[in-house]
Amino acid sequence: MQTEVGPFVLRRPRGTRDYLPEEMKVREQVIEKFKKTFELYGYGEVLTPAFEHLELLEAKAGPEVKEQIYWFTDKAGRKLGLRFELTTPIARIVATKPEIPKPIRFYYVAPVWRYEEPQRGRLREFWHAGVELIGSKYVEGDAEVIALMYRALKNVGLDNVIVKLGERRIAEALADKVGVKSYKKDDFFRAIDKLDKLGIEGVIQWLTKIGLSKSQIELVIDFITIKGSNEDKLSKAQEILDSEKASEAIKGLEELITLLIEGYCLPKDSLIVDFGIVRGLAYYTSLVYEAIVPDVTEVGSVAGGGRYDDLIKLVGGPNLPATGMAIGVERVIEALLIKEKVKIETTNDIVLVAPTSLDIYKEALKIAEKLRNNNIPVQCNVMRRKLASLLEHADKVGVPYTIIVGPRELKEGKVVLRDMIKREQKVMKIDELINYLKTKLSPE
Amino acid sequence: MQTEVGPFVLRRPRGTRDYLPEEMKVREQVIEKFKKTFELYGYGEVLTPAFEHLELLEAKAGPEVKEQIYWFTDKAGRKLGLRFELTTPIARIVATKPEIPKPIRFYYVAPVWRYEEPQRGRLREFWHAGVELIGSKYVEGDAEVIALMYRALKNVGLDNVIVKLGERRIAEALADKVGVKSYKKDDFFRAIDKLDKLGIEGVIQWLTKIGLSKSQIELVIDFITIKGSNEDKLSKAQEILDSEKASEAIKGLEELITLLIEGYCLPKDSLIVDFGIVRGLAYYTSLVYEAIVPDVTEVGSVAGGGRYDDLIKLVGGPNLPATGMAIGVERVIEALLIKEKVKIETTNDIVLVAPTSLDIYKEALKIAEKLRNNNIPVQCNVMRRKLASLLEHADKVGVPYTIIVGPRELKEGKVVLRDMIKREQKVMKIDELINYLKTKLSPE
Repeated sequence: MQTEVGPFVLRRPRGTRDYLPEEMKVREQVIEKFKKTFELYGYGEVLTPAFEHLELLEAKAGPEVKEQIYWFTDKAGRKLGLRFELTTPIARIVATKPEIPKPIRFYYVAPVWRYEEPQRGRLREFWHAGVELIGSKYVEGDAEVIALMYRALKNVGLDNVIVKLGERRIAEALADKVGVKSYKKDDFFRAIDKLDKLGIEGVIQWLTKIGLSKSQIELVIDFITIKGSNEDKLSKAQEILDSEKASEAIKGLEELITLLIEGYCLPKDSLIVDFGIVRGLAYYTSLVYEAIVPDVTEVGSVAGGGRYDDLIKLVGGPNLPATGMAIGVERVIEALLIKEKVKIETTNDIVLVAPTSLDIYKEALKIAEKLRNNNIPVQCNVMRRKLASLLEHADKVGVPYTIIVGPRELKEGKVVLRDMIKREQKVMKIDELINYLKTKLSPE
Repeated sequence: MQTEVGPFVLRRPRGTRDYLPEEMKVREQVIEKFKKTFELYGYGEVLTPAFEHLELLEAKAGPEVKEQIYWFTDKAGRKLGLRFELTTPIARIVATKPEIPKPIRFYYVAPVWRYEEPQRGRLREFWHAGVELIGSKYVEGDAEVIALMYRALKNVGLDNVIVKLGERRIAEALADKVGVKSYKKDDFFRAIDKLDKLGIEGVIQWLTKIGLSKSQIELVIDFITIKGSNEDKLSKAQEILDSEKASEAIKGLEELITLLIEGYCLPKDSLIVDFGIVRGLAYYTSLVYEAIVPDVTEVGSVAGGGRYDDLIKLVGGPNLPATGMAIGVERVIEALLIKEKVKIETTNDIVLVAPTSLDIYKEALKIAEKLRNNNIPVQCNVMRRKLASLLEHADKVGVPYTIIVGPRELKEGKVVLRDMIKREQKVMKIDELINYLKTKLSPE
């Protein structure tokens, strides 16, 4: 609901949102649970600047994302870009700090910015909650990150998530098999990654656009839509591709699935091998994956990640293998709202302190401060409202209790507690009031 | 510590920082306490986009801050600027949502960006933790915001904060008295606001620069350095200025001080009337203030605020009086570190699960997951390290316990718990282990 009034454009920039307190409560709950989960796996929080030197961000963004970077020139003539994810900034940190013991386990919860096409109705500012595990080249690292992602989503209420597993090296082998020219590989990956969003017809269109023949396209479509169990898919891929790289990738996927199911006890049907998953970021080197919520696919994938073994070296650091994932905070909240796993509450666990006249205002303030000392959230009257009007306001904003401070009760160290829901009131000593409110309100 | 390696500039953009886990723990503790304090006064959290239409930000920024806005043109040709504070974005929200009941109590903890001159050594990305109280024109509103600011700073460990109170209307009356031309008023305010940073000589220089005569400057300096108690200062100002506006301002300050000392019980010496406080933002209309920590003045003011009764109307909304303040998160943390009220800890309350061989890795994962189910943070071996090397790593990163999972103990449902500090180990059942670790580690 936006209006354009007065001399200034009051609209928010397109693709951005404001969050008011009711929504923030839900956001904070969800974010808090993500953080706790990441910490349970021994990850520590990091924070990087909102902008980086543009050349760093562009290093391995890939053509699609590169175009979406918000960038500007600062007064010293340096090109700066708003981060579009946190992996590259964290790669920069790690590259400049070789002294940190490996493996490095970092997490973050932070906004990112992408200039997305408006017709998609996507946000241009959105939050990523993710982790990076740096220094391990083994499948054990990937398994940990996926298990943690699965648990984080489960902990906020998405208990039936499906993780679709893909492999860049398999996609590469497919490109070789089909005969895609090396300079067209990025476009080729981008095309097959559209399967989920555009369906088979969409992928065919894209592949035609980049110049593949009908028979080539057929081969690709057949491959990325192979049916069957994970085992079936992997053994069929092995047959078709017959390359060393692909064999390694296939073996890796098998080991990963085994660790996740037999070690981390993920449900067998939560993991689906999907050769259509390639992902848009150019820095992934092998494993790539996306998490979806089967009954709310309209929000898109809620998380994604993969292995990026070259990025840290590429940005000037040591040769360090790495793997990581990020959860889309807004998409998760959208899915939770659709599934009614969270509710936006409009009630307030706050009490209102209402002096009956201005000359005892300072006494009322002292009582309010005493309540706050006891962790009871209190609002005072800053509008010089009369008692009747204050009680009306309390009803309007859903305050459960009003404490009426009058001169007569005050002399005896007492106040009137009015229950706004039951419409009852009773006189109480201040200490009694504090104990009563502590049991009635539930401050964390 | 920044290095320039490889083909890419690995430096962070100037004036920005990375925060690693040890520092983030301190940041999160401090921020959490700010939030809790704001909530105790009935404020609800809001979040706005990182960028706004530039014309909105420029509306009432003032000449100094206006020059510091990072801005860029998006692909649709719109000028967008990174927010330099949260008051203007929140004024936009309130202007477009007349349906929210008054008073509105919003808080935020969020990064802001200002292109500050590098020689000052200031950050260009820093965080504000602040509140806005919208709809009250009364001194009760200002008192609440200052009391809350004082308590927030006290709660994190700054227990001797001083709040310097100024008044734009008094500065206006002074400008009139001295005979400053109206188009030079902004420069005049900027000059007297430099008293704290540049001293008397600095202010004289600035006032000379804007064309004031020696006798005019003398009058100004005499006024902004009036000595004495708050009562003395205010009554002297009353004598000198003799304007209706100034009288109202003086009365307001007197009432404010009374409410804060007699109602909110702030120490008498925590409030100092200071006519040198004007503040750089052009939207303040009357009361302005800054909080400093007397024994660590080198960090600058740690918080500031004031009343801005015209801003919401100016950006196209209804005529709504408003008052607010913001705390500088980095400055507070700097002050806390200097005063040794917080410490950056490098130890980790994490346990390491170490299988003695890879073939029982999956069993070790199951144990790790069981510990996590009991809120015990666990790291697993993702480097295929042998036991000796794992224990070495545990020592290096300061892990207090390692759980050694061996085939023999596993058969009896047991593991070996190794205390890394005492260098002792003992065999335990898994449930026994969980109970033991729960008492030893202190997850929140």
